[in-house]
Formats: sequence, C-alpha cells, structure tokens
Amino acid sequence: MSPNPTEFAFGMIGLGTMGRNLLLNMADHHFAVAGYDKNQKQVDLLAQEGEGKPVRGFTDPQAFVRSLKTPRAIMLLVPAGAIVDSVIAEMLPLLTPGDILIDGGNSHFTDTERRAKDLENKGFHFFGMGVSGGEEGARFGPSMMPGGDREAYKTMQPVFEAIAAKVDGAPCVAYMGPGAAGHFVKMVHNGIEYALMELIAETYGLLKTGLGLDNAAIGQVFAQWNEGRLQSFLLDITKDIFVFKAPGTDHLLLDDIKDEARSKGTGKWTSQVAMDLQAPIPTIDAAVSMRDLSKYKQLREQLAQQYGPAAGALAGDKDALLKHLEQAFYFSMIMSYAQGMHLLAQASAEYKYDLQLATIAKIWRGGCIIRSAFLNDIFNAFESGNQLAHLLLDKKVQELVQGAVPGMRAVVGAAVAAGVAVPAYASALGYFDAFRTARLPSNLIQAQRDYFGAHTYELVGKEGVFHTQWTALHAKAEAPAGPQANETPATSPVLGTKQSNVEASKTQS
Amino acid sequence: MSPNPTEFAFGMIGLGTMGRNLLLNMADHHFAVAGYDKNQKQVDLLAQEGEGKPVRGFTDPQAFVRSLKTPRAIMLLVPAGAIVDSVIAEMLPLLTPGDILIDGGNSHFTDTERRAKDLENKGFHFFGMGVSGGEEGARFGPSMMPGGDREAYKTMQPVFEAIAAKVDGAPCVAYMGPGAAGHFVKMVHNGIEYALMELIAETYGLLKTGLGLDNAAIGQVFAQWNEGRLQSFLLDITKDIFVFKAPGTDHLLLDDIKDEARSKGTGKWTSQVAMDLQAPIPTIDAAVSMRDLSKYKQLREQLAQQYGPAAGALAGDKDALLKHLEQAFYFSMIMSYAQGMHLLAQASAEYKYDLQLATIAKIWRGGCIIRSAFLNDIFNAFESGNQLAHLLLDKKVQELVQGAVPGMRAVVGAAVAAGVAVPAYASALGYFDAFRTARLPSNLIQAQRDYFGAHTYELVGKEGVFHTQWTALHAKAEAPAGPQANETPATSPVLGTKQSNVEASKTQS
Repeated sequence: MSPNPTEFAFGMIGLGTMGRNLLLNMADHHFAVAGYDKNQKQVDLLAQEGEGKPVRGFTDPQAFVRSLKTPRAIMLLVPAGAIVDSVIAEMLPLLTPGDILIDGGNSHFTDTERRAKDLENKGFHFFGMGVSGGEEGARFGPSMMPGGDREAYKTMQPVFEAIAAKVDGAPCVAYMGPGAAGHFVKMVHNGIEYALMELIAETYGLLKTGLGLDNAAIGQVFAQWNEGRLQSFLLDITKDIFVFKAPGTDHLLLDDIKDEARSKGTGKWTSQVAMDLQAPIPTIDAAVSMRDLSKYKQLREQLAQQYGPAAGALAGDKDALLKHLEQAFYFSMIMSYAQGMHLLAQASAEYKYDLQLATIAKIWRGGCIIRSAFLNDIFNAFESGNQLAHLLLDKKVQELVQGAVPGMRAVVGAAVAAGVAVPAYASALGYFDAFRTARLPSNLIQAQRDYFGAHTYELVGKEGVFHTQWTALHAKAEAPAGPQANETPATSPVLGTKQSNVEASKTQS
Repeated sequence: MSPNPTEFAFGMIGLGTMGRNLLLNMADHHFAVAGYDKNQKQVDLLAQEGEGKPVRGFTDPQAFVRSLKTPRAIMLLVPAGAIVDSVIAEMLPLLTPGDILIDGGNSHFTDTERRAKDLENKGFHFFGMGVSGGEEGARFGPSMMPGGDREAYKTMQPVFEAIAAKVDGAPCVAYMGPGAAGHFVKMVHNGIEYALMELIAETYGLLKTGLGLDNAAIGQVFAQWNEGRLQSFLLDITKDIFVFKAPGTDHLLLDDIKDEARSKGTGKWTSQVAMDLQAPIPTIDAAVSMRDLSKYKQLREQLAQQYGPAAGALAGDKDALLKHLEQAFYFSMIMSYAQGMHLLAQASAEYKYDLQLATIAKIWRGGCIIRSAFLNDIFNAFESGNQLAHLLLDKKVQELVQGAVPGMRAVVGAAVAAGVAVPAYASALGYFDAFRTARLPSNLIQAQRDYFGAHTYELVGKEGVFHTQWTALHAKAEAPAGPQANETPATSPVLGTKQSNVEASKTQS
C-alpha cells in the first residue's frame, strides 16, 4: 500500500497523537502522506496505526523531504514557542522556495506574524492554522482555522475540507483572514473553552456543595443538559467523566484527581490580548485567574481552616434550583461566546483580519472543543444581522438571554449567600448588567483621575478634553475643601497640542 | 537666589506638573535644582512658580547639563515608552560615565530592566523609581519606590527622604530591590488603585441606582466613610468631587462628565503580568475590563434599550443596606490589597526582587494614591508575620474580614437581584470564597483536559502524571460510552521524558 518515495502529497512534522491522527485521517481520505519525527517510537506507532493505509513515517528529515511531491506541503505540529523556530530552521535548508509550510500548533499569533514575513521573504508559502478537536477530532474530523497566505491555503483546501468535521455536509474549515488570523481565531476559541470549562466546574461545585448531590446525580444533570439546548462537546465528555471509575475501584477517577488546574497558556494569551485591544472578556479572565488560584493548594487549605465553616447548602427548593441552574448555565455560556465574538470583532478591526463571524461560528459547530447547539444561534445571528456589533443585539439571542435571566440571578444570589465560589458565573452576570447600563458610574473614575493626576476628562455633549483644578493645592491648609471649591471654578479646556519629546508627563498617578 | 551654574545638585528632564512640583519640593528643602524642557512655556512656568527658590529651568540641554554638579544626578519625568529611550539617547552624549540617571515615570518594568543593563554597560548609574501622589504629592510629599542600582540610590537617598511624604516621621521612600523592582512595585500600586477606583464607582452606582440617594446624600456617605476605618485618599477626593459644582451651575460637575473611563495602561500591565506569574488578581482584572467596557457607550445605550428595564432598587431596609455597604466596601478593599500583595510576593520570588512587603506597605501609607488607614494593618501583618504567605492569613486581618462578610454577601446578593452591575465587588467575593475552599471543583477541569487533549492529570497522594483513555476513539461508534468505560481501565502513568524537538505536540485542544 505504501506509495513510492517522491509521491507523498503531504508531510507532517511531529508525530504526537495529533500529528499521527491527522495523517491517518488524510490517509483515510486517500491522500498519500508522510510523517517525520526524530523519535523512532512515534514513527513505529504511525506504522502500526497506519497499517494498510497510504502513510509512511521517517526519522530522517532528508528522506522525509525527498519523499514529498513538489512543491511540497508540510505541516508542523510541535509545541508552540522556540521549538517551532528551531524546526523551521532545521528544515529550511532541505526545502525549495515555493514549498508550503503550515504551522498547525497553538502558536502565539505574534509569532505567526513574524514567521509569515520571514518565510515570505525567503520565498516560501506559510500559513498558520488553528486545529481544534483533540485526539478524536484530529482522527475523525477536526475544526480548522487557517489564515495567512491565501493562495497556499487554496492549494491545500481539498485536503483540509476532506478531513474536516462536517455539519450538515459543510466542512468545518474556512480561510479566516490574512496574517495570523487563523491562530488568532484559534486562540479566542481556546479562551471561550476556558470560560466554558470553568463554568462547568463551578456548576459541579454548586451541585455537589450547594445542592448536596452525589456523583451519580451530578452526572445525570450533565447528561440531561446535554440532551437539550445546552448540548455541547464539553458537557458530553463531562457526563462520561461522571461514570468513569478509577481502575479497580468503585469510585470515580475524578475524585482521585488533584484540584489544581493546569494550562498551556492560550487562555491567558486571550485575556492579555483582549486587554491590549480594550475588549472586555471578564468571564475568560475569571477562568484564567481561577486556574491560577487553584494551584495554591496549601494556601487554600490554610485559609479554609482559618475561614471556616465551608460553603453550605443553597437556600431554596432543589427542583427549582436545578431549573434555575440550567438557565444560569445557558445564560453564562451565551455571555462567554458573546465575549469571544466581540473580541474577534475588535481584533478584526485592529489587525485588519476582515473576520467573518458567521463563518467562524459555522466552522466551530463541529469538530472543535467548544462545539455546541448554541453555535447555530450564533451563526444565524451573524449571518442574518447586518454587521451585528455584538451578539447580544440579536433578537433571537435576546429572547434566549432574557428567558434565562431569572435563573441566573437566583443561582448567583444563592451561591453568594451560601459561600460557594462562582467567579465565572458572577462575571458573566456583571458583564451583562454593565453592558445594559446606558449610564455607568464610570464618570466618577474620570473625575478622580483628573483630580489626582490631571488626566483630563470629557463632557457629555461638548467636544474636547477638560481639566479642573478640583481643589487648590493649598486648599487643605488654608480652608476646608468643599462648598468653597465651586466659588472659584477652575475648569479649563486643554488644547490638544502635540507633545514634544521632553514635556509634561501625565503618566503619573 | 538662583545659584551659579555648575552648582545645581539635581536635574529634572520634563517640566510637566509632576516634574515642576518635584523640583519645587526639592527647592523647598534647600536643594538647588535645575530643570530642562524643550517647551519654553514649561520653563517659564517653573520660573514663575519657583520665584525666590533655588531652582532654574533650561530649554537648552547643554546648558542644563553644564549647570549640574558632577557626578550628575538627573531624573526623567516624561511619558513612558519610546520617548524615554529617545530622551536618554539625546542626553547620553552630553553626560559623563558615572552620572546617575533616574527614570521617575511609569515605565513598564521590562523596559526598565533593558535600560538598566544598557546604561550599566555604558558606565552610567541608572535606576527606575515609581513616583505616586499626583500633583499634590509631588509638590508636598510623594511616595517613591526606587529600585535597581543600590549605590546610586544611596547617593540620592537624602534628597528623596527629604521630599517624601512622612508618616509618623518616617519618609515614604525606600529601596525596593534590584533590577526593575521599583517600577514593578509602582505598577502593582496602580493595579490596586484601579481596583479601589472601580469599587468606589460601583458603590456610587449602588447608592444612586440601588438606594436612590441624591448626590448630596451620596457625598455624605463617602465623607462619613472617610472618617472611619475606610479612611483613604481616594475616598477623600471622592467626597470633594461630590461637592464640586460645574462652573456657573447648581449641579455637580461630575454629572456632566462622560461615563467612559480612560486609562494609561498600568492597570492593564498589572493584570497581564499577574497572568504570566499565575497570581490571581481578579478584582484588578475586573477593574481593567470595566474601564474597557465603559468605552462602548453606543453599544451600552443600544443594549440598555433592548434589555430594559434598567436596574432597580435594592431590596431591604435602607439603613441596614448602608451599614452592609460599608462592610462590603471594607471587605473588597482588603481583597484588592491582598491580591496586590500576593502578586508582589510571587513577582519577588520569580524575579528575585527580595521585596519586603512590610516596607512597601509602610511607604504606601503616605503620599501615594492608594494610601489608607488599612495600610497600617497590612504593615503590621507583614512586619509581625514570619514570611506571611498571604495577607488573609494574618489573624487581625482575618478578624476584620470575617466581621465584614455578612455585609459583603448581603450587598452582592441584593445587587445581583436588582441588576446593578457590581463586577469588582463580585470578583472580590469570588476570590475569597475560592481561596477558602480546600477542595475546588477544578479536578473536573483536569479530567476534561486529559479527556480531550491528553494533557495528563495528577492524582491526590500519588506522585507522577497520568493519562487515561477516557473513552476509546471508536467508543461512540461501537457502543454507548458510559458504564462500560470502567471495565477497560486505561489509566497509565506518563514518563516525564524530555521531549525532543520534533515530537508529540500536546498543545492542541
């Protein structure tokens, strides 16, 4: 079955589970593919798993490169960071300008921008592509988010459309946009994933501590939810986890697992970049900080001892609470997606990605970790809406949100009273309540900033920026500040002159 | 009064309000000082304000440099970023190795690290110093956070101790640590400042919308609070703001100010760095994202219309609510400081700053924007505690927190029910409730990560990392996943082998 050398249509560097599974997926679709890994064990695994398929592994990079049809198409699936650079540096002398390189890992989008420029200058085609779906997705249909060199993607499009997950016959892969658009979209996907996972964990905490349910009953709640409008991959695997016993025991493996959540950084990147773009994504932020907080195990144990008693039962009727909890989860899930989509819109404007939010929702409906029934609603909202500025503006979404508000308030209120930690839930509610406030109290922050730091402020219905001498420097020494202040109004417009290099620093606080 | 050229003890580059006020402050303490600004207007202002004092301004850099005693001591107070580099580049040819350069602006600590190395290599002394206190602090006593070149700081110590704010006779300035420790501490100071300002803004929202108080009554609440244990600079200026009328009118200037909060980035940096250091600071994060959210004014107006009615009155007795609100603010203020101090401890370990948290609390008690009565409690906690790992572990702080918990839960609960946005308050409670939870539901996140991405997990009481084949790849096709899964346990330890460059990517999700 193995084709002759020089006949392989596609090469993969990095034969971990993801890399092998993607190759096997391609082979299933009759593409002859080659893989390369320094580690003989990974190559052996590929041979074993690919028995009878048009796939072959190499430990020698030259043999690997020689085995590929030209112009070559090679994907890297190696850990993000410096390793990607060193692998590219290692391979480049073996390749020919015109070859296509694809980074399928979770590279930071700024690295992808840099590599794209660098490789383009050297005559290579390069694009970054987010791949989501985990092991199973890679093997039987991932969701893929390519961006960058559009022509190169078009060359590869038949392969990726063949191996992608399908929803209603449509492949879960599409060109996202120029530059690092693909990796950016994948990063935000992961940010949303962080939020949803934290929400599920907080739900678990509420069901266990707040409602006193045992594992079987908790698993049933998740399984039930997964049959309804909450249907999603993450709930699907959660229900599985709630029936998986520790080997040779009668209790769940889950109960033996440490409550210290690790992370690879993509959620953190999402929060950090969102702050640069001034796009609020508080539920993703909360998920990131909760993963961090979970790692301070010893400190938590000390504080638990000092600040006992532990959280107690939620007040209220259990059935009503369960009904409300379903609403609360739905509400918070919507807010998590809404934050992610809003961030994508801001990034698209800033980086000129020209992202199509409807297309993104469409290819997230299958294959990826955050796939869910609700993504159809997101797709419909952005597909029908004329440049919808925010998911919450969509009428259908509005209806869904408003129907879930009562449960959301009930659950957060009960958790707050009982002392069960629900930072992600609470952040989702805060996001909603703040965004539906036409006049926020943030004018006070502007007044304070101008008071202590002369940072200026803007006025409603009046152009320009202004500074007020809120109290004379000596006011306190001379007279009590207060009512007198307005007798000597000192508000003055500040001219928008360009600052010279060496001039007033307004950066102090 | 003006000394002869070549006799000035200290030079300032950048004669904005902060720079001029620091010079005047020094002159008041009998240091002969010189300033330089390209802008003649700023130099004129200095001359005018410094009438009769040993201070002189220059628009010519060479004359400025010649006017200083050698080895020269020069501070930069210019906007953070590229301008600092360009000013240094401009001045360097005029200076002599051995001269001292001080960056007194809000530079990002990584820039300060870079500049310190660069200038040290060129034979100059350099240190970064955070300066807080705004205009008034600079003029009559700021809080200063120097770090880096310790010998250079010692040379300058008499000047800075003279001009610093004093609390019980102790100057609010101290050497923070090596490298960029000074700018790092100042950055975290600003992060805490963001949190406190957002909490005050949310309090304003609660008093106005939730309790229906008018401005006079709201101002009275802040004034009253400022007389008690909540005493702080920020409440002090807030009470002033609530009596400051718009010029020529009968209403508060505050009411005319736009509710779109701007920022210079230091709060954002704090959140971003905290995420890199895996130190949870959710209340600072919430403050950052709320500033961002506030800027989407048009969107907020649209959503307010769609998602009406607006937030309503808080349920409950007004006097009880006011009492609870004082507790809630105290509680959340403590959590904000606790998060900042915890971040400092993590940064100190990571960057080897050897930060003394007691000293930091001590110099924050006066002069700076976040000065407050509570900083005495923080000082006492870290001064008496043997390497206290977290502020909340201190017994006195514990007592204060526990006394405020009922009010905290009552206020957040009431706000959640009424729909008043309190993201910072809610985040402070979430932080507390999560940190006092010995067993978090985060084990579920680990199980999920291992399920879909083979990211491995750890077990309670068992060394190593483990991976489980939670469900066979074909499980869904072959048989319903579920109870069967535990019949074929597939949990296996994962060897901690070092990855080769080209090997399994576990970065996918």
